[in-house]
Amino acid sequence: MKALVLESVKKLSIRDVPISETVGPYDVKIQIKACGICGSDIHYYLEGAIGDFVVKEPMILGHEAAGIIIEKGERVTHLGLGDLVCMEPGIPGVFSPEVLEGNYNIDPDVVFWATPPVHGCLRETVVHPARFCFKLPAGMSAVEGAMMEPLAIGIEAAKKARINPGDTALVIGAGTIGTMCTISALAGGCSRVFISDVKAEKLGIAASYQNVVAINTAQENLEDRIIQETAGRGVDVLIEASGSPKVYPGFFRCARRGGRAVLVGMMNGTVPIDVALLQGRGISIETIFRYTNAFDRAAALVSAGKIDIKRLISKTFPFKDAIGAYEYAAAGHSEVVKVMIEL
Amino acid sequence: MKALVLESVKKLSIRDVPISETVGPYDVKIQIKACGICGSDIHYYLEGAIGDFVVKEPMILGHEAAGIIIEKGERVTHLGLGDLVCMEPGIPGVFSPEVLEGNYNIDPDVVFWATPPVHGCLRETVVHPARFCFKLPAGMSAVEGAMMEPLAIGIEAAKKARINPGDTALVIGAGTIGTMCTISALAGGCSRVFISDVKAEKLGIAASYQNVVAINTAQENLEDRIIQETAGRGVDVLIEASGSPKVYPGFFRCARRGGRAVLVGMMNGTVPIDVALLQGRGISIETIFRYTNAFDRAAALVSAGKIDIKRLISKTFPFKDAIGAYEYAAAGHSEVVKVMIEL
Amino acid sequence: MKALVLESVKKLSIRDVPISETVGPYDVKIQIKACGICGSDIHYYLEGAIGDFVVKEPMILGHEAAGIIIEKGERVTHLGLGDLVCMEPGIPGVFSPEVLEGNYNIDPDVVFWATPPVHGCLRETVVHPARFCFKLPAGMSAVEGAMMEPLAIGIEAAKKARINPGDTALVIGAGTIGTMCTISALAGGCSRVFISDVKAEKLGIAASYQNVVAINTAQENLEDRIIQETAGRGVDVLIEASGSPKVYPGFFRCARRGGRAVLVGMMNGTVPIDVALLQGRGISIETIFRYTNAFDRAAALVSAGKIDIKRLISKTFPFKDAIGAYEYAAAGHSEVVKVMIEL
Amino acid sequence: MKALVLESVKKLSIRDVPISETVGPYDVKIQIKACGICGSDIHYYLEGAIGDFVVKEPMILGHEAAGIIIEKGERVTHLGLGDLVCMEPGIPGVFSPEVLEGNYNIDPDVVFWATPPVHGCLRETVVHPARFCFKLPAGMSAVEGAMMEPLAIGIEAAKKARINPGDTALVIGAGTIGTMCTISALAGGCSRVFISDVKAEKLGIAASYQNVVAINTAQENLEDRIIQETAGRGVDVLIEASGSPKVYPGFFRCARRGGRAVLVGMMNGTVPIDVALLQGRGISIETIFRYTNAFDRAAALVSAGKIDIKRLISKTFPFKDAIGAYEYAAAGHSEVVKVMIEL
Repeated sequence: MKALVLESVKKLSIRDVPISETVGPYDVKIQIKACGICGSDIHYYLEGAIGDFVVKEPMILGHEAAGIIIEKGERVTHLGLGDLVCMEPGIPGVFSPEVLEGNYNIDPDVVFWATPPVHGCLRETVVHPARFCFKLPAGMSAVEGAMMEPLAIGIEAAKKARINPGDTALVIGAGTIGTMCTISALAGGCSRVFISDVKAEKLGIAASYQNVVAINTAQENLEDRIIQETAGRGVDVLIEASGSPKVYPGFFRCARRGGRAVLVGMMNGTVPIDVALLQGRGISIETIFRYTNAFDRAAALVSAGKIDIKRLISKTFPFKDAIGAYEYAAAGHSEVVKVMIEL
Repeated sequence: MKALVLESVKKLSIRDVPISETVGPYDVKIQIKACGICGSDIHYYLEGAIGDFVVKEPMILGHEAAGIIIEKGERVTHLGLGDLVCMEPGIPGVFSPEVLEGNYNIDPDVVFWATPPVHGCLRETVVHPARFCFKLPAGMSAVEGAMMEPLAIGIEAAKKARINPGDTALVIGAGTIGTMCTISALAGGCSRVFISDVKAEKLGIAASYQNVVAINTAQENLEDRIIQETAGRGVDVLIEASGSPKVYPGFFRCARRGGRAVLVGMMNGTVPIDVALLQGRGISIETIFRYTNAFDRAAALVSAGKIDIKRLISKTFPFKDAIGAYEYAAAGHSEVVKVMIEL
Repeated sequence: MKALVLESVKKLSIRDVPISETVGPYDVKIQIKACGICGSDIHYYLEGAIGDFVVKEPMILGHEAAGIIIEKGERVTHLGLGDLVCMEPGIPGVFSPEVLEGNYNIDPDVVFWATPPVHGCLRETVVHPARFCFKLPAGMSAVEGAMMEPLAIGIEAAKKARINPGDTALVIGAGTIGTMCTISALAGGCSRVFISDVKAEKLGIAASYQNVVAINTAQENLEDRIIQETAGRGVDVLIEASGSPKVYPGFFRCARRGGRAVLVGMMNGTVPIDVALLQGRGISIETIFRYTNAFDRAAALVSAGKIDIKRLISKTFPFKDAIGAYEYAAAGHSEVVKVMIEL
Repeated sequence: MKALVLESVKKLSIRDVPISETVGPYDVKIQIKACGICGSDIHYYLEGAIGDFVVKEPMILGHEAAGIIIEKGERVTHLGLGDLVCMEPGIPGVFSPEVLEGNYNIDPDVVFWATPPVHGCLRETVVHPARFCFKLPAGMSAVEGAMMEPLAIGIEAAKKARINPGDTALVIGAGTIGTMCTISALAGGCSRVFISDVKAEKLGIAASYQNVVAINTAQENLEDRIIQETAGRGVDVLIEASGSPKVYPGFFRCARRGGRAVLVGMMNGTVPIDVALLQGRGISIETIFRYTNAFDRAAALVSAGKIDIKRLISKTFPFKDAIGAYEYAAAGHSEVVKVMIEL
């Protein structure tokens, strides 16, 4: 089948790949209709590696996808042929300790699309366990469906934040993930979300959503603004989505006493944290690694109109121009959130 | 000062009441500007008692109120003269075990407005601890502010439901409290809320909100509809807000495995519950009694436009017609949600 | 292989059963060394059914077992040949919604030993997924290991009770499950556990453990005693382990404000519950259905000397006398807790 | 009355102090019978300050105390004259936001004994709110009662760790607080607790408790040992009680996937934390600051025999030798845990 293959660093090709997958009793075969380009795809494209994950053999890219079920295993009952589904790209081990404890995202044996040496799904068809495929609500397109993967990270952050209705939040970083966290926190019960960045264009996109307050930290002091906006109290929820070590530990000063922080942004090395500050304010910290049970929640909130995801689809390319799509995404235009490829 | 006094069963008067309250260092004095009529006010008016709480002496009614601060104690720093505030009507004991555990609502020593023998606040002024007064966001009127009290019950139910973003909920009962729970569950992260009742007019008001699905159980089977709407799964969250024993235990069948139920509706006597059903589905139950720390959350969500509260203010009377307001509210018009009195 | 077969109601035989099981890559084959007799085994023996579960074909009994690994699949890394293990008898579906949410116990597709039509494990060997087998700590015998299954229910109750260190608990019912809940609650952090029953001999066994206070409700009023013992406050945790409808709702009066109840005992039909009492006291309810991730916890606590399980092994029979063991267990001697069969 | 006064740095005197306290309606007056010496007392004694808290005027030391009620306010009902009580030394504001949320320990307005400019309780009598006094169980001495304060920190750590029955824990630091955390974690449900330090004598005291495994990190690698002891998995709960920045972030590697860390040890400045490690393992972090509702839990567990506190009372001095007691405690003998003064 045709696929977008990362042959080596900065070298992409669209070509036939000899893949033959059998549909097991609990699997479905999906004809891919849309696939987004993620920051991790760009990392592999430009650098050939993310940390210890190194692309040593040609690898199909893509893990944010939606498609149509064209075949299904005999034990699959909750999905049917022709269903338009989005797919959760990571499959944990069967009955691993992490799965049995409900934390399947941190199972070290997770097999995840487009994480070497596992092929991604930017290809004609893919076979996947039916339980990791989610039927899209009526009216949702495949391109929107492919957005459920990045949105799922925001949903996971909002879940872990244990938002109480009416909470305020501060999201650090107005990139794709920060924006997903922002709109998820609002949909998840926040009354107001502050988002900080140094890039005005990124902030502008986030601030186009109702109840989002953008803070450009190139121009003003974050803590001062937060303290002023919250009558001296600080926000209920902190979400770190920039992955910038410079953010720590200053941003904990923006949390109220008894607040909660969720660390989403990933980075190498360590960051400096003021433990006494956490203690004196009674702040607890949760971390995010991918997501659990978040795709159907994401789709339900989009379908309900509580999250407008279309606004974040910046440009869509046909599959034949997939290499151009990657080049466009890799250029890092500041007004671009998500680049999509349609098949 | 002038007040609305329940002299005895079904006998109200507007008259001078000799009340002189001193403003302690942590108190404020509020000029009442609006006060709603609650179901409990009507109970005292028509029957003179709710359970063990019997009106034996003339008592001022009203506990859903907002007003302007006209005097403040020397230790009050977070509020100022002229602030428009809503008030939480129940004051717990100082350092009681329940307060120290964060459950001040269940302190048996709570002193609550218009619960005999404690006077309510449908009068010219009232002195109240400043920490139980909440400054209304800019643009919110006193009448809207007085709605924060019933809304706080919905917020409390949504908090106790521990809503995960995208959850579905079923609220039983489309009275004032059921409607408050419905709009709070949506604001608190639900993607869709089903509400059931046998009264079409009540259901119509609730269903005027986006993402609310009304189910008239006079016309269709609740469980069948829920199962069909949720692809056989059941809802994530159940909220019982009818106070009708007939609802139990049937409605637990509407919950999904691992779901949560919140019991809001109060009633005398016992209800039959199928424990094996709860066990087999892994359903947990929380209960609500008034609220904790909910007023500012309610106001924040209204101010953010996430809850439209104005729609539920059915009619507003001037204070001079307060007796007429009570008669109107007591008549139980099915299209009426909340009757307000302005001072 | 030889097995204990329930041929029909009240008719047991020890005979050859033609079972051939293959060891999959994630499985182990276990030579059974000990198997306990559970109340459910007795129900099937005497009545041929439990609720909707009816024994229609000859069925091997037994699900509380320990044994030695004699073969293992190629993907099994955490267990080795010769390991003495206890086994969790219920296997959920792969990647079912309940599994992915960490509630695998309530997966409706769980396949559970000795629950018709599934054979039990009172036989020479059994093949089982390795992840549901738990290596016993050094020094623990197979007979003790077989006790981990009933103890796991107590551990699950203690987990769901979210015990804070120093909590008090009241366990209703001094049968096997009530006693398991009692010793688990103590090991899980309670400072004192009250246990109530009408049978003096059962209470005596439970009260032989330190910090257990037996209350014979044939002789004294439960609520009065609890209120007196807790300085008027009530216990922090209620555990209903009798399965007697008569217990409801009286026993909720024994809980303190803000307390938690865990319902373990199963019964048919409904029980009367006083919702207003739950609300006024802020009591929440959790339910138990079997267990999740509890076997290694049980074994660790026994190995640490924090739970003495040997005291509850009343009598042990060799496999050749397994029918006699069932007759003995079915006689219901009040001083008997657990009857074991050694292979 | 006579009191131990810190006149200035390293200068103590026992002298009359003119204090006259009135017993309010909710207060009791206590005749102090025992008072321990805390590390913070020693800091003020030797250095005159802890961070921003500077001793500018002569200050009575001591906050770990027990005594007898000799007078009580008219509204005190749960305590009586002659009761032997221990006292929680910090009093929060009335109805502060933190109190109403159940986090009274982080109220910035807490008034805490022997924290400048507030006098401590190493004196003849003290007046205290009755709700912060806890009647000791029968058989507990005043000296043991005074141990409830440091033990309360361990209890708080165990509470915040949300221990599941059978969990393993690793406590960093075998000083007084680390040892308190260790015995609290065991009493709170752990099956085994590892404790690490570089001081053999401190480790020896901790390891005298059953199910405690001492790891001398001067002699062996902590992570290697933990991984080996836990079959490669890591511990369920981490408790940092050393206050040493060097511990971070290495010790997070000792936690299992899905584990929880509780930060108890206080220090100045920041510590380096590897966020990606926390994310990949799904580790959450809680912090401790003093305690909430922990004193009666501590006393109940000691009374039940689940915590042996006597072993940690290294030496007791009469009040007339209180200065010698401070000199002895300040000498930092490695075999000394707690020095007590009896009045």
